[in-house]
This record gives sequence, C-alpha cells and structure tokens, in this order.
Amino acid sequence: MAEPSAEHAQHGYIGDKDAYLRRLKRIEGQARGLQRMVEDEKYCIDILTQVSAMTKALESVALGLLEDHLAHCVVDAAAAGGPEADAKIKEASAAIARLVRS
Amino acid sequence: MAEPSAEHAQHGYIGDKDAYLRRLKRIEGQARGLQRMVEDEKYCIDILTQVSAMTKALESVALGLLEDHLAHCVVDAAAAGGPEADAKIKEASAAIARLVRS
Amino acid sequence: MAEPSAEHAQHGYIGDKDAYLRRLKRIEGQARGLQRMVEDEKYCIDILTQVSAMTKALESVALGLLEDHLAHCVVDAAAAGGPEADAKIKEASAAIARLVRS
Amino acid sequence: MAEPSAEHAQHGYIGDKDAYLRRLKRIEGQARGLQRMVEDEKYCIDILTQVSAMTKALESVALGLLEDHLAHCVVDAAAAGGPEADAKIKEASAAIARLVRS
Repeated sequence: MAEPSAEHAQHGYIGDKDAYLRRLKRIEGQARGLQRMVEDEKYCIDILTQVSAMTKALESVALGLLEDHLAHCVVDAAAAGGPEADAKIKEASAAIARLVRS
Repeated sequence: MAEPSAEHAQHGYIGDKDAYLRRLKRIEGQARGLQRMVEDEKYCIDILTQVSAMTKALESVALGLLEDHLAHCVVDAAAAGGPEADAKIKEASAAIARLVRS
Repeated sequence: MAEPSAEHAQHGYIGDKDAYLRRLKRIEGQARGLQRMVEDEKYCIDILTQVSAMTKALESVALGLLEDHLAHCVVDAAAAGGPEADAKIKEASAAIARLVRS
Repeated sequence: MAEPSAEHAQHGYIGDKDAYLRRLKRIEGQARGLQRMVEDEKYCIDILTQVSAMTKALESVALGLLEDHLAHCVVDAAAAGGPEADAKIKEASAAIARLVRS
C-alpha cells in the first residue's frame, strides 16, 4: 500500500492501524461473499444473517475509531480548552448521532 | 458472471439480482475506500461519516431482500397454509429482530 | 379498563393483550424513573444505561407486535391473494424499515 | 417539583433540566398512548409507527444527555488529565456502544 507521507501523518490518533486494516479487509471479504450468495441465489434468510454479521463488524470498527478519537483529538482539545474544545465536542456528538441513527 | 444452474435456481425470489449485485459491488468499494482512509490516516470523523454511509447502504440492501422474501417465500407459504406458514413467519421474524438489533 | 366494544375488535391479531399492556406499563414506569433521575441529577452515564434498557424493552414490544401482525393480517391477506396481499407486504416492509432505522 | 438539594447537585452537567423533564414527560405520555392503542386493538401498523416515534424521541434525549456529559464531565476530566481522563473516555465509549447497539 501507499507509503504514508508526512502530509498524511497529521492524524496519528488511530490506536492500531494494522488491526483496523485487517478488520476492514475482512469486511470487504464479507461484501464479496454477499455478492456470491446473491449470484448463487442462496436462501434469503441466510443472506440476511450475513448482512447482520457484516453490519455488526462495521459498527464495531466505528466504535473503536470513535473511542480512539475521543481519547486523542477530543482529550487534547479539552486540555487546550477554549472554543476548539467546544467545536470538537459538537463534532464528535454529531458523528455519534449519525452512528446511533444508522 | 456464472450461469445460474438449475440447482441454484431454487430461490428465485430476488426481485432484481443485477441491481443487488451492483449495490453490493459499491459497498465492497466503500470497504476498500475505508481501508485507504485508515491507511492515509484521514481525519477520524470523516472515516466515521463513511462508515455511517456504508451501514445505511447495507441496511437498505437488507430491507430490499427482506421485502422480496416476504413477498415471495412467505406469501407462498401462507397461501399453502399449515405449519410451514408458521415456520416461515417465525424465521422471518427472527431475521427482522437481528436486523433491528444490529 | 374499557370493555373492548365490537367496533374495536376488528384487529384481534394481538397474541396476548394483557402481556403487552404489562410490558408497556413497565415502560411507562421507566419513563417516570428517568424523570426522577434527571430531577435528582443522577450521574449521566447511569441515566444513559436506563435509556438503553428502555429502548431495548420498546424494541422488543415492537418485534412482538410485528410478528403477531405477520402471523395474522399478512398471512390472511396472502391466503386471500391478489392486490391486498401485495399492499400488506409493502405496508409491513415500510414498518420494518422504520423500526430498523429508528 | 422537588428543590434540588445540595446532595443532589453533584452532577450539574445537564444543560437544561426543565427541557429534559418536559421531553421525558411527553415520552411517558407516549407510553400511555400505546397502552390505549393496544387496549383498543388499534391497527398494528399504526401502533408500530407510534413505537418508532417514541424510540426516536428517547434516542434524541440520550444523544442530548451524552453531548452534555462529553462537554462537562469528560472535558473537565480531560483538562485535569491523568488516569481519570482515560477512565471517563472508556466509560463514555461503553455508553455510546450501548446506545448504538440498542
């Protein structure tokens, strides 16, 4: 994969990048598995079971990234204080609302 | 893609197979896009926005498949009646519960 | 409570009305409990834990009602066949989508 | 309602207590309305629509409380730093996971 350039390295908040990449690779594999199931006209309920498993895997990645974000960006902004801290809280809350509602 | 064999054709409930395959292909692309974002250490909130979009796309595929399933397998079983109809309703309800809870 | 009149009895699909009423009464109690917690300024995380429990209880009532509905109204319409069956499937699918997205 | 005593005042994080109490009162009313609907055997789909509306109202209260919590308790702990900040982030993340999964 692409060498992370200095320019990209500004958000070094991700706890364990390789673990996230492995999980997302597995999710990509689940998306391909679903295509095979539809192609082969597998039983609809079995396809739905796989969709639920994939949704849970995605949700779990999102919750991990969110915790990393709170622990780094939000805590740093809070320690610095001022309007930046407020803005980070509002931004994180909006992201949480999108997750809860999706 | 592969010619659906007679053996595979038993669950011909899927409304528009090609449309589902296109949507799942796009979801697979979203999973790859997320890997690039993590690889490049994009801003966490932007990654979470993409995860929410991908979850919504998956959910929408699941709801479409479920409607197709109700309209074909469940309606056919209901028309035939008997214990098979009850079993199909229980099975569909369990799948709906997994979707609602995932 | 009120004697169900003949007029009200048209949707006799509900498996066990008393059980649903007891569960909804308990949910009403949870809503009152939450007001006390906010009034007493209990710890936010404890309030959120109660909200999650109440949401799960509501979700579970909804899934029960939906299964009753599929087993009665939808199965009856399917057995009768025709456009009424299609309309019932569309209506149930829209209700499922609202539950999954809420 | 009861005067908040000094003892209760320890978690003064709630943005606008009266607004939350009004929203929870309305949610309690929705729970009572659902009981009437079940009692009167209203059409199942209409009951489910009300359940979805009530779930959304609860969710929205939860997201508001969570934002208040992040903006007060978590920001204060973050500004103080140390293990307390880490503990608050873990606790908030667990509450978010419960909301996302409920």
